[in-house]
Amino acid sequence: MRDAYLDQLDNLAGGLADMCDQVAGAMAKATTALLESDLQLAEEVISFDIRIDELRASAEESAFALLALQAPVATDLRTVVSAIHGAGDIERMGDLALHVAQTARRRHPQPVLPAEINPYFVEMGRVGCELARKAGDVIRSRDLGKAEELETDDDEMDDLHRHMFTVLMDPAWTHGVGPAIDITLLARFYERYADHAVAVARRIVYVVTGTMPGPLTV
Amino acid sequence: MRDAYLDQLDNLAGGLADMCDQVAGAMAKATTALLESDLQLAEEVISFDIRIDELRASAEESAFALLALQAPVATDLRTVVSAIHGAGDIERMGDLALHVAQTARRRHPQPVLPAEINPYFVEMGRVGCELARKAGDVIRSRDLGKAEELETDDDEMDDLHRHMFTVLMDPAWTHGVGPAIDITLLARFYERYADHAVAVARRIVYVVTGTMPGPLTV
Repeated sequence: MRDAYLDQLDNLAGGLADMCDQVAGAMAKATTALLESDLQLAEEVISFDIRIDELRASAEESAFALLALQAPVATDLRTVVSAIHGAGDIERMGDLALHVAQTARRRHPQPVLPAEINPYFVEMGRVGCELARKAGDVIRSRDLGKAEELETDDDEMDDLHRHMFTVLMDPAWTHGVGPAIDITLLARFYERYADHAVAVARRIVYVVTGTMPGPLTV
Repeated sequence: MRDAYLDQLDNLAGGLADMCDQVAGAMAKATTALLESDLQLAEEVISFDIRIDELRASAEESAFALLALQAPVATDLRTVVSAIHGAGDIERMGDLALHVAQTARRRHPQPVLPAEINPYFVEMGRVGCELARKAGDVIRSRDLGKAEELETDDDEMDDLHRHMFTVLMDPAWTHGVGPAIDITLLARFYERYADHAVAVARRIVYVVTGTMPGPLTV
């Protein structure tokens, strides 16, 4: 009985870590769709989002069953509650990848970004996907050093996000209001995506240490 | 013993409902700070956010204690898990009110909004605060008809949000990129604020009926 319970806890964590890889893949594809105005890839991300929603619902059901049938306490209870939070954060990361893909689809066949802006989103995509994969690793390994790395990666995302505004507000910006609005929202989607990955890692720190390393929402 | 447990469940719900009123108040003040470039009011919202964060932490601790000590099942378990989600949503609403106040402070003494845009934000503030207060009412009353009202109010917010983009993209827009970026983000803050209020109400529908009326995140 005890073994089945531990298996359930492991499966819950494993499912969440896999979800992190799924939303990393979704954001990687959404970024390529954005940069290359690839409608087919955008559609793929958009259709796949329902799968991420299902994974979240399934993780919540598992957590709920664990609470109802096993009444975990102490670290196990923290694990289950953190899984409930984590599933929400990771599903939201999927939504944000979806928003990027939807933006690419909305402007297709026109590119969303002026060519000189592409490199910023290459970087935001790279850092975002790295954060999602690291969040998955932290769930699997409970490695607090790795969890700390996400904070540094998130600083990099914040710098990119801030820099985007400097570019848009510069008198040299000649692309007008429309592209500036798209870029403002896109940059925010990536920045929020990163924040949710950090929140997932912070919850694991809380599971291991009993103390949250930063604000609950970031 | 059973009575103390029921009191704890009631207190948890009551605390969340009060949090809704607090973030309604924060968004009302932030909106006035935005419309009237009122720095003192903006500062008030900004300092108060830490109090909302504390209320969320306290709600989470209560929920955690209930899970650990009472091992609730069925409807009671749904109530506690929904409270954990609700506390997160309501705290995020506080963050979004904070972002509105920070925008007002960043541009002070200049107004953020061109005068002709003010009426849209009067409306978004009104609808947003109404949604937050109704979410509190739904937590207190578990009134499913009232929960349904939030969906309609949210449609109104979505319409306002969409219309904002029409205004910004119109060739008649003469205020340039900077104000357009501020308005894009502000409109998104109000729209997300509304989405979180709806999520709170949907969780209560789930507590009462056992079925979510819509997607888990909106």
